[in-house]
Amino acid sequence: MKQSILFYKAEKEAPKEADTVSHKLLLRGGFVDQLISGVYSFLPLGLLVSKKICNVIREEMNAIGGQELFLPTLQPKSIWEQTDRWEHMDPPLFKLKDRHEKELALGPTHEEVITQLAAKKISSYRDLPLYLYQIQTKFRNEMRFSGGLLRTREFMMKDLYSFHTDMQDFQEYYKKVANTYFKIFKRCGLESIMVEASGLGFTNDFTHEFQVLSEAGEDTIIYCPKCEFARNKEIAELKEGDKCPDCSRFLKIARGIEIGNIFPLGEKYAKAFNLYFLDKDGQKKLVIMGCYGIGIGRLMAAVIEKNHDEDGMIWPKEIAPFAVHLLSFDHENAKVRKVSDRIYQDLQKAGIEVLYDDRIKVSPGQKLAESDLIGIPVRLIVSEKNIGKNKVGLKYRDKKTESLASISSIKTILKKW
Amino acid sequence: MKQSILFYKAEKEAPKEADTVSHKLLLRGGFVDQLISGVYSFLPLGLLVSKKICNVIREEMNAIGGQELFLPTLQPKSIWEQTDRWEHMDPPLFKLKDRHEKELALGPTHEEVITQLAAKKISSYRDLPLYLYQIQTKFRNEMRFSGGLLRTREFMMKDLYSFHTDMQDFQEYYKKVANTYFKIFKRCGLESIMVEASGLGFTNDFTHEFQVLSEAGEDTIIYCPKCEFARNKEIAELKEGDKCPDCSRFLKIARGIEIGNIFPLGEKYAKAFNLYFLDKDGQKKLVIMGCYGIGIGRLMAAVIEKNHDEDGMIWPKEIAPFAVHLLSFDHENAKVRKVSDRIYQDLQKAGIEVLYDDRIKVSPGQKLAESDLIGIPVRLIVSEKNIGKNKVGLKYRDKKTESLASISSIKTILKKW
Repeated sequence: MKQSILFYKAEKEAPKEADTVSHKLLLRGGFVDQLISGVYSFLPLGLLVSKKICNVIREEMNAIGGQELFLPTLQPKSIWEQTDRWEHMDPPLFKLKDRHEKELALGPTHEEVITQLAAKKISSYRDLPLYLYQIQTKFRNEMRFSGGLLRTREFMMKDLYSFHTDMQDFQEYYKKVANTYFKIFKRCGLESIMVEASGLGFTNDFTHEFQVLSEAGEDTIIYCPKCEFARNKEIAELKEGDKCPDCSRFLKIARGIEIGNIFPLGEKYAKAFNLYFLDKDGQKKLVIMGCYGIGIGRLMAAVIEKNHDEDGMIWPKEIAPFAVHLLSFDHENAKVRKVSDRIYQDLQKAGIEVLYDDRIKVSPGQKLAESDLIGIPVRLIVSEKNIGKNKVGLKYRDKKTESLASISSIKTILKKW
Repeated sequence: MKQSILFYKAEKEAPKEADTVSHKLLLRGGFVDQLISGVYSFLPLGLLVSKKICNVIREEMNAIGGQELFLPTLQPKSIWEQTDRWEHMDPPLFKLKDRHEKELALGPTHEEVITQLAAKKISSYRDLPLYLYQIQTKFRNEMRFSGGLLRTREFMMKDLYSFHTDMQDFQEYYKKVANTYFKIFKRCGLESIMVEASGLGFTNDFTHEFQVLSEAGEDTIIYCPKCEFARNKEIAELKEGDKCPDCSRFLKIARGIEIGNIFPLGEKYAKAFNLYFLDKDGQKKLVIMGCYGIGIGRLMAAVIEKNHDEDGMIWPKEIAPFAVHLLSFDHENAKVRKVSDRIYQDLQKAGIEVLYDDRIKVSPGQKLAESDLIGIPVRLIVSEKNIGKNKVGLKYRDKKTESLASISSIKTILKKW
């Protein structure tokens, strides 16, 4: 992609209301744009990252048997009444009426829709287990929305729902999803911890959140630095310095960003929508369910909170908008332009994703500053000084120093990387 | 994908309210499920087709310089008032209030959002032309919704917006998009005609619709069978048998399905949102715009209306949910199972997308009937009778006759296909 064409404009300053590092950098780097509070447009760079995150998630969901579908946003009042959630969701539902005066909600989650759907298709133990997921826009009528993509009213989410014949089968899958979540977050460049939390009206059981420890987060976590004990402060009557119930070490406290959650749903939704199956002995039983969410935008923001420096974002390789940022210094110079163009074409032919800063009337200093800001992992610099030696500048975004590489070796270096 | 696992259940009969061929077949084949009138879930088979259509569209949009982004559904009243469309959209907007009593609309289209966004980023002729598109869910508060995916209240749409310095540049791109649209529809298995139509409040100019001539459609088209003259009946004071204004032949009349449209927007939206640019001489001018839509679900339904027989759908190769349907007859038989499993693994390794009907306790007759129904282009049949001769049954969905092919030749046959 040529940067001269890219729909993108970097800003030196973030607007005053931007209150977290990720919020500031996403706005300054032209990754997102705010339409109204808590509602964002994803611009080309932001959408590229979002799609890469979605691809990681799809790969991992498919690897544990997930089948993708796509459920509606407009949901009838009746199904929300069947689970007694029409009035009791927190944050409340966005509600509206259609031209026939029928009341509808904008889906903040899809337990109701998927359970009534599953009840149409599941009848026998042979239809189970079943794992269905989607990646789709959710709506939550929040009162406060802040932190940029950390808390929004409209956001892209992956939600997986699992259906089982019995509790043991459910529990095994629940663990499998938990392990898959650690893997997904790791591929996105994040270390996460699994934290016990409340059911938030989805269930009366404990549930689990995946938290990234960060000052930008809204959650407070009590955790043990030595064992796996971790609880959301909401449900933990414990404080920093108390002893860990599991290993007796001293507990720590931290603010966290919740990037995913997993919920045992038991028979609650199956009961509400008559989701039964016939077991091997011909007995009618309720299906056991679980649900499992990941917010794409929030994950993206969390990655930035944990991967940045004072100059900008530092994207992990797997979810970077491009692999390579090729900077043509002094692009009005015909020699520089020719070499840059050739490198650009070569890399594209080799299937490497390149953002090519071919802009004229932009100083080398500004190109470097914007390159730091948008944080593509590998940077190649073509300047008059170096092409005389058949070299280009090579710098990794997460390293301090730049080195010189011969032009002929670029592809080999990038393939090894 | 193994059919024994696939979230899918074929129905022999369509519900009574299903009123078009595509509606009946999509429901019977488990491609979609109706949540409420005019609102559908896309099940795995339906989503696969939808994704393939989206990929065709993305390829063709990128080929004409389109950059993908993703705009919000929740849109503030203020931007709709700026274009005087808050009260005047037809069908009307879905409206709702947030917890701060602020009025919002669910986006039925994105001229307002994209123009105010472009105004933040465009300042010079160097920023133009610019082509931005998205594939995203739209909401239209229709009074009547019928025909399954032909007229819905919530639907996936590709919308492209173009921004130009002058009318000539706009007109050239408008023609380019028109040609690209013919190409997209052709790749999806559809012949379409371009029809003059009214501006529907988007513009006061004539606009163009892409219509597929079909009895399932809602539009009436006056067209000339000899030249390119074609008009939507809404704006044409002509009737069947009148003479073509261009070539004097007799005109024909037909009902059409509108699968795409292109709109010259002129300066209307630029004026409303102060979208100016400085030209080469430093003069401030309004940007000229166009917009270009394709409804994904409706296109999918139109493909079925034009590609089916009395037994079911007949998917064109490029957008079929799978390339090959592998049917294991008598899957309880160990020999049949072994051969089928091997063919399945071989094809998967070769990168061929296979749906593998490995269901037990389903008769060969039912497997054939369901295979006809869901319409995958190539069918391979493994039966005890034929594997003795090292052969499988080979049938193309759009041909009447089945032939025998040696098992060792399958991959070669499919690669040539």
